[in-house]
Amino acid sequence: MPASSTVRVVLHPLHVPGTREALDGVDGVELLCPDDSDLPAALASASVLVTYRWEDHYLVSSLRWIQSLSAGVDQFPLDRLADAGVVLTSARGVNAPAVAEHAFALLLALTRGVGASVRRAGEWRPLLGEEIGGRTMAVVGLGAVGEEVARRAAAWGLRVVGVKRRPDDYRGVAERVVGPDRLGDVLAEADIAVVALPETAETRRVIDARALRALGRGWVINVGRGSAVDVDALLAALERDELAGVGLDVTDPEPLPADHPLWAHPRVVITPHIAGLTPRFASRFVPLFVANLDAFRGRGEWTNRVV
Amino acid sequence: MPASSTVRVVLHPLHVPGTREALDGVDGVELLCPDDSDLPAALASASVLVTYRWEDHYLVSSLRWIQSLSAGVDQFPLDRLADAGVVLTSARGVNAPAVAEHAFALLLALTRGVGASVRRAGEWRPLLGEEIGGRTMAVVGLGAVGEEVARRAAAWGLRVVGVKRRPDDYRGVAERVVGPDRLGDVLAEADIAVVALPETAETRRVIDARALRALGRGWVINVGRGSAVDVDALLAALERDELAGVGLDVTDPEPLPADHPLWAHPRVVITPHIAGLTPRFASRFVPLFVANLDAFRGRGEWTNRVV
Repeated sequence: MPASSTVRVVLHPLHVPGTREALDGVDGVELLCPDDSDLPAALASASVLVTYRWEDHYLVSSLRWIQSLSAGVDQFPLDRLADAGVVLTSARGVNAPAVAEHAFALLLALTRGVGASVRRAGEWRPLLGEEIGGRTMAVVGLGAVGEEVARRAAAWGLRVVGVKRRPDDYRGVAERVVGPDRLGDVLAEADIAVVALPETAETRRVIDARALRALGRGWVINVGRGSAVDVDALLAALERDELAGVGLDVTDPEPLPADHPLWAHPRVVITPHIAGLTPRFASRFVPLFVANLDAFRGRGEWTNRVV
Repeated sequence: MPASSTVRVVLHPLHVPGTREALDGVDGVELLCPDDSDLPAALASASVLVTYRWEDHYLVSSLRWIQSLSAGVDQFPLDRLADAGVVLTSARGVNAPAVAEHAFALLLALTRGVGASVRRAGEWRPLLGEEIGGRTMAVVGLGAVGEEVARRAAAWGLRVVGVKRRPDDYRGVAERVVGPDRLGDVLAEADIAVVALPETAETRRVIDARALRALGRGWVINVGRGSAVDVDALLAALERDELAGVGLDVTDPEPLPADHPLWAHPRVVITPHIAGLTPRFASRFVPLFVANLDAFRGRGEWTNRVV
């Protein structure tokens, strides 16, 4: 691809406000923003797709590069993309600050009685909160999001331990990091577990009944993927009074059915997978996209390349 | 008072769980824990009262020292205590870490859509949050609570400015601190105002319509005393879409009437004056009480003496 030519890029209709305007200003890009019905025609004429979503018919012969709008890439058919010679890059790190703030929003809503107070709005009845300062937080999944959570926890005087697939590679603020085989050990010493795992075959339901027993009467926050946490095990542990509280931005299944008992549980706060939605998305996504556009043109290295 | 003699101390019936047990273990204290009806008789035989609440009949002739359970002392008749030769000491600082965490719980519940999500539990409908990192926070009232808020904000990469009655005396993390006469200046440069003022004649309704106009489309959090913020002005500014959100642990009046429109406003989160309630209260209060008991016995200085 000549460095000077214009690249036709399709932006999927589902995107955070501001993304379109920001990409439209990138030099050398002809941006197509079709609605759902026009998407196939637009894709047939383009070599680049920017998207959260994936459907198999998106894999047209002209497609050469997919820039995911999400950090997780479990929605994409990695093997098929590799076979077709399509590059896939993730948006790892772009929403990490927002997601980290969200993890604390859920945790503090539980520890400070905010969720309970909103539920009984109009009543002026005290309830006894808890403090998180000085406690131990286990960050399960020390990727970009997990490290942003760990940094904020350490800055507030929490002790941070963590789990990472390759603990020997870890360079961050957590004082002790173990591999997935020792998840139970770090949960056993933690008061708070923040789960920030991608969805892979290895992460499915790692937070199960046994893991919750290891945590004991603590708080579980999930801001990664819903599949990492067994929601039935959560409910059972809450009902046995073994968990102090649960904050979920992601669930399994998703959406969580409206009649699921977790919605109404007094020690649970749920948000509908919104942790990564931030008005600052575009300002952090575009520099990543521009760097990868250079790589696409044969100048420089890919960032966050998955396939 | 001989250093060796036993001091009879009355603990008011309204107190955080654990306070009684902790005070009961203090050497040289005979602790009386009357219920409301027995309180007058107990007071008549004691020289020390430990209390949040005040009623005029508590001022019996045997009373020599009141240790407040609260940081604020606006409930006490300071002049009458002075005239009667009764010492009053506050619990300034004891609940400051809990209140600071609570301020962030309210703020993040607003910025991350937690309040809105709890209100519409069962619905899985996205909403766009905001990030606080990198924003400017004005801490109005840089006492013990305000400084704990400022420290947490600075540790998370917020810029902190503040207002203090005597700004020249300030030694803390805020990068710019002004006197009350320049409140509007710091609000004008802030995205977030955290109010942590005691109740005095000077602090009454300092956050009024003009102050809110200076802040503009930001967030107001009140964890001090309800009287510092004009709730009608808050409501008017919310209805004109001039405020991004309001988080209140204290209101004026208190309790806030069940039919007050602030309860139902989508950009408001209210907790019923619970920020300072923490199971760690006793462990921080007792060392203060013991130090003041020594002062009461003529050994060492009073801590947090108000009268």
